[in-house]
Amino acid sequence: MSIAEDKELKDYCLEVAQRARQASRELAICPGENKNAWLRESAPRLREATERILSENAKDLGAAPGYGLTPAQVDRLKLSPRRIDGIANALEEIAMLAEPIGEVIESNTRPNGLDVQRVRVPLGVVFFIYESRPNVTADAAAICVKSGNAVILRGGKEAAASSQAIVEVLSQVAAEHGIPADAVQLVNTTDRGAVGHFLGLSEYIDLAIPRGGEGLIRRVAAEATMPVIKHFSGNCHVYVDSAADLAMAEAITVNSKCQRMGVCNAAESLLIHADVATEFLPRVAQALAKYEVEIRGDDQTCEILSGSTPAHEADYSKEFLGPILSAKIVASVQEAVEHINHYGSGHTDVIVSADYGNIQSFLARVDSSAVLVNASTRFNDGGQFGLGAEIGISTDKFHARGPCGLKELTTYKYVVRGNGQILE
Amino acid sequence: MSIAEDKELKDYCLEVAQRARQASRELAICPGENKNAWLRESAPRLREATERILSENAKDLGAAPGYGLTPAQVDRLKLSPRRIDGIANALEEIAMLAEPIGEVIESNTRPNGLDVQRVRVPLGVVFFIYESRPNVTADAAAICVKSGNAVILRGGKEAAASSQAIVEVLSQVAAEHGIPADAVQLVNTTDRGAVGHFLGLSEYIDLAIPRGGEGLIRRVAAEATMPVIKHFSGNCHVYVDSAADLAMAEAITVNSKCQRMGVCNAAESLLIHADVATEFLPRVAQALAKYEVEIRGDDQTCEILSGSTPAHEADYSKEFLGPILSAKIVASVQEAVEHINHYGSGHTDVIVSADYGNIQSFLARVDSSAVLVNASTRFNDGGQFGLGAEIGISTDKFHARGPCGLKELTTYKYVVRGNGQILE
Repeated sequence: MSIAEDKELKDYCLEVAQRARQASRELAICPGENKNAWLRESAPRLREATERILSENAKDLGAAPGYGLTPAQVDRLKLSPRRIDGIANALEEIAMLAEPIGEVIESNTRPNGLDVQRVRVPLGVVFFIYESRPNVTADAAAICVKSGNAVILRGGKEAAASSQAIVEVLSQVAAEHGIPADAVQLVNTTDRGAVGHFLGLSEYIDLAIPRGGEGLIRRVAAEATMPVIKHFSGNCHVYVDSAADLAMAEAITVNSKCQRMGVCNAAESLLIHADVATEFLPRVAQALAKYEVEIRGDDQTCEILSGSTPAHEADYSKEFLGPILSAKIVASVQEAVEHINHYGSGHTDVIVSADYGNIQSFLARVDSSAVLVNASTRFNDGGQFGLGAEIGISTDKFHARGPCGLKELTTYKYVVRGNGQILE
Repeated sequence: MSIAEDKELKDYCLEVAQRARQASRELAICPGENKNAWLRESAPRLREATERILSENAKDLGAAPGYGLTPAQVDRLKLSPRRIDGIANALEEIAMLAEPIGEVIESNTRPNGLDVQRVRVPLGVVFFIYESRPNVTADAAAICVKSGNAVILRGGKEAAASSQAIVEVLSQVAAEHGIPADAVQLVNTTDRGAVGHFLGLSEYIDLAIPRGGEGLIRRVAAEATMPVIKHFSGNCHVYVDSAADLAMAEAITVNSKCQRMGVCNAAESLLIHADVATEFLPRVAQALAKYEVEIRGDDQTCEILSGSTPAHEADYSKEFLGPILSAKIVASVQEAVEHINHYGSGHTDVIVSADYGNIQSFLARVDSSAVLVNASTRFNDGGQFGLGAEIGISTDKFHARGPCGLKELTTYKYVVRGNGQILE
């Protein structure tokens, strides 16, 4: 790129960010009924635009081989009338979620009569960087705007035409319902340099959310001058306690590992209390064998399961995202907790037990975004937890942890009402 | 520093951080009564140690001229029996604050029977970097530990001996009340390189809080690999509306500007509605003249106040921290809001008015950590807002905004109880 071209790109990014900031000021005071009307009305309009969206999607699909997309990526990119209906349904569901803005989170009246409220307000402007699924375009726009934020959408070039067609519908409906035109802006260049320019604009952008591979997230975290909600790996554990119902433990282990293997909240590691190992390991191994899961175990595990592969220490830190499960026999719930806090990624960890003391100990000590008792790891999800839609799952502790829904895209301000108070 | 010395420093920092992480695991499950007993018992023990603390403080005071401290800095460094009593009182007050850890912030039972709770937990390890006031050592230790966090204290070299004496007392009492020995660690080197090493240890440190000049904060924000709570400048406004009680407006303006000029929540700019400018400006100018405050006004202000200095545009962005006040006449509450959102720093802004519509508009539209009606800017403070102790005031929006007390040093995790649920 020439210097003049880069200057032009930089100016473009600045203008987009400034327009987003201006739109965010209007959105912050936009009544919930306008935002909901926009969402409700966008749904049928997207369905009506099916033909046009599919024809734009066909352009993306045509270009896909040139981008070297895998069949799985092409599948995620491909729209159909059913998938467009799904996108529309999601907007209708987000419209039905409770209004997050204006909630008085805490309040107290001070001895001097000052009435102090902590009130939920939008963050402002969200810069959302994502890959090739066009449905994410609509989801992200809806979640950001419902939570009062303007959003700058930077989708992958692979879905550029599809996303553009979707945003056009959303923008048309926005104009009819008092939603600022720049509340949702799709970045109209696929130049990779644009991301860098936006990440420098902390004066206008309050939060960056990268959704994609680890390389993207690391790049965004390193370059961003504003906060970033990061979604790193999930090395999730199932711990089968000495007091576990073994049939339940088997079902939870199999579901956690096999219900969908390539996702962050799938189990990657199984810890078994020594007291139940000889009984539990063979039965769970048999159940996992149906899904062709390879068990990589410690010495004791390999003794019990003659067919299993010996685990290297590094296996206990790995997110396999496929048919491999590390396994280790532990002597106590304490050992399980220490193993998880040491090797885990703080994402999702499960204890299967009927023992109150062991459960309480596990829940209190495991330092993860979600700790579950007698349930599958796969439930760590915004929808399953009742947050409604989610824009991502944070592996950070700061601001937002675990699934990020509407509230996680907000902050607060203190609103203080007095009648002439001055500080003595 | 030689490479070998730097290696040794790096190893030292790593060990401190790892010990803090281990202590944080224990602190996270430490009962509130242990933390409170530690705080309550530390107070009389500090008072008993007055002689020893004063003799260590004398060493710091003796070294102060060599560090080139200003008289104001020496005053902040100097302890007395009364000041040590104040430090002890602060610990007793923190002991009385409600326990922040374990609070169920939200909960819901899902249709499948899963009981989902969002539970408040500590962040983990806080790295606190501060300047020369020894009382901050005790305050920060108390706030961090009460909120369940281990803390690494990196005080200025100017107060090294005083801080060491205080931490020794806290550590002795900690051992008697089941508080981990490494819950409070004072960095025992004044080498500036240590800060850089700690800022790289995001695996062990969850949050960095710099408290000091803008240079320190910028350095920490730039180098830190973990989140940072930043406290930048406060360009705070008082807007006197057309419907203001002018006697109240005068008292609030004078208090906001003059009660203490060198602090972040002092007013730096006065906006006056045109309808009341000719009546209000001369009287407030007279009141401010008693404090020798120079008014830097726009053309209209200078017309009304013949003695005032013309303001440059840059004056409207300045945090004077002294006897200067910028002033501007505005035509509406909207103009006041736009001016504040453009030139302000998002810290603290006040409207003086009796008009409901103007007040609501101001509260909703001004994007600052605190917006106040008919009260002094000086109330934006953790103690005044009822948070109890504060470890700083955040000028960020992310995670913590405004005064940071106990809750702002926490995060949450999802605790989910089931009875065998798996994802279909």
